[in-house]
Amino acid sequence: MQGLMMNTPLTITEIMTFADKVYGSEEIVSVTADNPRHKYTYKDAFTRVRRLANVLQGLGAKEGDTIGTLAWNDHRHLELYYAISCSGMICHTVNPRLFEEQLEYIINHAEDRFIFTDVAFVSLLEGMQDKFSKVKGFIIICDESSMPNTSLNNTHCYETLIEGKKELFEWPTLDENTACSLCYTSGTTGNPKGVLYSHRSTVLHCYASSLPDSFCLSARDTVMPIVPMFHVNGWGLVYSSLMVGSKVVLPGPKMGDGETLCKLINEEQVSLSAAVPTVWLALLEYLEKSGDSIDSLNRIAVGGAACPLSIMTQMEELHDVHVHHAWGMTEMSPLGTFNTLKKGMEQLPKEKLNEIRIKTGRPIFGVNLKIEGPEGESMPWDGVSSGSLKARGPWVISQYYKQEKSATDDNGWFETGDVATIDSDGNMSITDRTKDVIKSGGEWISSIELENCAVDHPLVAEAAVIGVPHPKWTERPLLLAVLKDGAKLSKFELLAWFEDKVAKWCIPAECIFVSTLPHTATGKLSKKTLRDEYKCFQWDN
Amino acid sequence: MQGLMMNTPLTITEIMTFADKVYGSEEIVSVTADNPRHKYTYKDAFTRVRRLANVLQGLGAKEGDTIGTLAWNDHRHLELYYAISCSGMICHTVNPRLFEEQLEYIINHAEDRFIFTDVAFVSLLEGMQDKFSKVKGFIIICDESSMPNTSLNNTHCYETLIEGKKELFEWPTLDENTACSLCYTSGTTGNPKGVLYSHRSTVLHCYASSLPDSFCLSARDTVMPIVPMFHVNGWGLVYSSLMVGSKVVLPGPKMGDGETLCKLINEEQVSLSAAVPTVWLALLEYLEKSGDSIDSLNRIAVGGAACPLSIMTQMEELHDVHVHHAWGMTEMSPLGTFNTLKKGMEQLPKEKLNEIRIKTGRPIFGVNLKIEGPEGESMPWDGVSSGSLKARGPWVISQYYKQEKSATDDNGWFETGDVATIDSDGNMSITDRTKDVIKSGGEWISSIELENCAVDHPLVAEAAVIGVPHPKWTERPLLLAVLKDGAKLSKFELLAWFEDKVAKWCIPAECIFVSTLPHTATGKLSKKTLRDEYKCFQWDN
Repeated sequence: MQGLMMNTPLTITEIMTFADKVYGSEEIVSVTADNPRHKYTYKDAFTRVRRLANVLQGLGAKEGDTIGTLAWNDHRHLELYYAISCSGMICHTVNPRLFEEQLEYIINHAEDRFIFTDVAFVSLLEGMQDKFSKVKGFIIICDESSMPNTSLNNTHCYETLIEGKKELFEWPTLDENTACSLCYTSGTTGNPKGVLYSHRSTVLHCYASSLPDSFCLSARDTVMPIVPMFHVNGWGLVYSSLMVGSKVVLPGPKMGDGETLCKLINEEQVSLSAAVPTVWLALLEYLEKSGDSIDSLNRIAVGGAACPLSIMTQMEELHDVHVHHAWGMTEMSPLGTFNTLKKGMEQLPKEKLNEIRIKTGRPIFGVNLKIEGPEGESMPWDGVSSGSLKARGPWVISQYYKQEKSATDDNGWFETGDVATIDSDGNMSITDRTKDVIKSGGEWISSIELENCAVDHPLVAEAAVIGVPHPKWTERPLLLAVLKDGAKLSKFELLAWFEDKVAKWCIPAECIFVSTLPHTATGKLSKKTLRDEYKCFQWDN
Repeated sequence: MQGLMMNTPLTITEIMTFADKVYGSEEIVSVTADNPRHKYTYKDAFTRVRRLANVLQGLGAKEGDTIGTLAWNDHRHLELYYAISCSGMICHTVNPRLFEEQLEYIINHAEDRFIFTDVAFVSLLEGMQDKFSKVKGFIIICDESSMPNTSLNNTHCYETLIEGKKELFEWPTLDENTACSLCYTSGTTGNPKGVLYSHRSTVLHCYASSLPDSFCLSARDTVMPIVPMFHVNGWGLVYSSLMVGSKVVLPGPKMGDGETLCKLINEEQVSLSAAVPTVWLALLEYLEKSGDSIDSLNRIAVGGAACPLSIMTQMEELHDVHVHHAWGMTEMSPLGTFNTLKKGMEQLPKEKLNEIRIKTGRPIFGVNLKIEGPEGESMPWDGVSSGSLKARGPWVISQYYKQEKSATDDNGWFETGDVATIDSDGNMSITDRTKDVIKSGGEWISSIELENCAVDHPLVAEAAVIGVPHPKWTERPLLLAVLKDGAKLSKFELLAWFEDKVAKWCIPAECIFVSTLPHTATGKLSKKTLRDEYKCFQWDN
């Protein structure tokens, strides 16, 4: 029997109309290329969003069309998010930091009809426009006075298009499963893959990510999403902050600049922010140098990479800012886990507490996680057993855009590609990438753990550990180490270093000193290169 | 184009499996008739829930069947909530305080197949069982030693049935629109009407009602739902608390007892509770008498009736407990609005702040509200203009159970039956019931406002104001007043009392002194009786 409640759809349009009505006077502040401090209200924003929807219609864009954006975090990018998705079109946020070939690939793969671009990326696009198969025009996100001279075809000025457009727009009634936005993962191998979010997945992600044990967003917050809006919808904050009526501060192109961030925090009284660890390092460095404080800020979320404990400690001890580790993926909208304490944990001894806090946190309700062992068996949540991390839930991908193959396993779980442990409190910790983990005698050995152990040695500059095929053990770990300039160390000495630090069977079976290690374009260790190079390595035993 | 995210359903089963996995060691404490302090963990609870699902299957209950419960707030009632709904059956929480005719009506209308009842209600059911058309058996919620002698047919003991049942149960995969629970409104006129919730509506209500600007539920909370679990699923707290991993304290039959509540708060370190105003009055009286404190409690939600400012003030000034006014309806799962402050409001002068805080608060995201004037026109959100309050959203009713007629207007909005104002911050205030409001010359006059004004007069004991047909003005307000014993007051003196207190055109057109006013069985003024009595009242002008 079916329930008898209304089946009103979960759409971004509902977020917009609700925010407009209930929080209309709340502020959105942004730094743009042409204005160091643009301020207006939600109501102003949504009036312009309706005008922008008329612009899109006027350009000939239709429901289901993909519209690309290359832009930093500012109010106009926010307007685009809402106008495009609520018109039934797909907002394709393009990461302008990608290589040209990747940009070309994703803009063509997504079939972008129009591209809205910041002035900063115009020259990048000029050199590529002949390769775009579907793009009918470019809209430069600025006012008339900032319009650059450009060789881009069919170019418009954002503010000129909006000016004088009707303030009314009849938003289409959308099914909640309608696609709203598209974001490509920049995988280390192969072409980028597109993740096509729906209105439903986005709204549910908003609810879950705003809960007290996630971002804890309220109408009393001032939220500054530093994480770029082209990274998984700025972790959803561009939707969720408006859903709950937070003041929003968007740092524009200045997201890596400690001084600007500090100024914004103080002048706009930012209470919550979210970014990758390097941003917080930059801010901490600036604060140390300048002696400034950041009193209004009471918590930050850190994701995108593991957050060093030192950042947590400095933020908390020097600035009274609580640091929450979070974990997510483009394929997960992105939020999967968030680190907050359970009842009573605050009383734990500091070391014990830190052990919990450097984990990536518990799944938020809606996300189901499991870890599977080598044979597909479910591994226990004991904080020690590791397994291939899989996820399931209404904001987790089922299929990449235009790929026939499902993105899930036979049971409907998405394989994250990570190896992780989960403790009995539900706190997850990523120990390795699935492709890097060493499968030895039915057990998994974390390559990252061994690398971290190796570089802890005072004479080691860099280290890589890879699994190399072994006749008896399937694989055994091979350590490749770069010594510091002038350092002298034998392989036996280095291997002995591991003895009281990792389980005996995990100790690398062999060590080779090399002068350099190969890296990818983004600076990460290229283990694929190493595995290719050493795949025929002969073990002594 | 549709998004490509997983379409995992929103079900109570997901709440259960998530809570079991992530918060398994969290506690549920309850007071039962046979145990003053029963304690166990979520994991224990869900193990028993699976056994209970096997019990239901063993009894022959099937997916889609309705199962009645007559029970106070305790762990066994909680087990029933989950076992019934997650089995694809409908948990029909029966209010044991209803009149016998109403109980008979709703148990038959709902077609309850089995009734789970507390020992306390056995004798009530014994006298009625012959009238139940579909009930196949009764399960008494106690252990063997507490089993009463009873003439009920086909009776089982709850604990005996559970004992030895399998701990495994294969939960059915449910569509999210499947009905999960049923609650009847006890309307003042006509038969009670059933509201049939779905898994989807329940889960979405959980998300929204746990947000920081609603109950703000976290894994660090200890939640005591005093509101009965037969009142709209205990305001949803029985689901939402487990969803976020709060410790749960259930006061059993002791929900009106200040001493028990105080003890529970202190001994279990309750941080949040929810109940109707009378409960808080009882607690405040107990605290004043005993001199006890309630230090762990930091906030309460008050709903079900308007919360007097005096309760708010006492709770805050004497006990440092923040009081949040909330508003909802059986037809709304129930939460519609919740009163929290927006940024900067804390700095308002106290009087101004109190004016905001006695309102019922802002809509929570998912609930859309509007107020409509006499001609169906949308009234402005200015805090002054009143209108018929309508609601729309995924946890608002679309149709009463087994009624062909829609519960909504032609545009899909549910008419609440209340007249309300909404201010520019979205704060709603109920001014009257639609049927009691006086329609005068195209304007609406609040009967409640006039009654409150009348009883503010030092010589008036009670007052009722009704609209009586008027040839020129459609209706005019007629005041019926009961004077205090021995008081002397002329009707002109009393009408003059209104002059500087309400708008001139709202002042009652006539006043009649009466010795008593008619009341309903629940103690409310029966304006229907008065309207019938005075419908032919002749106006002088």
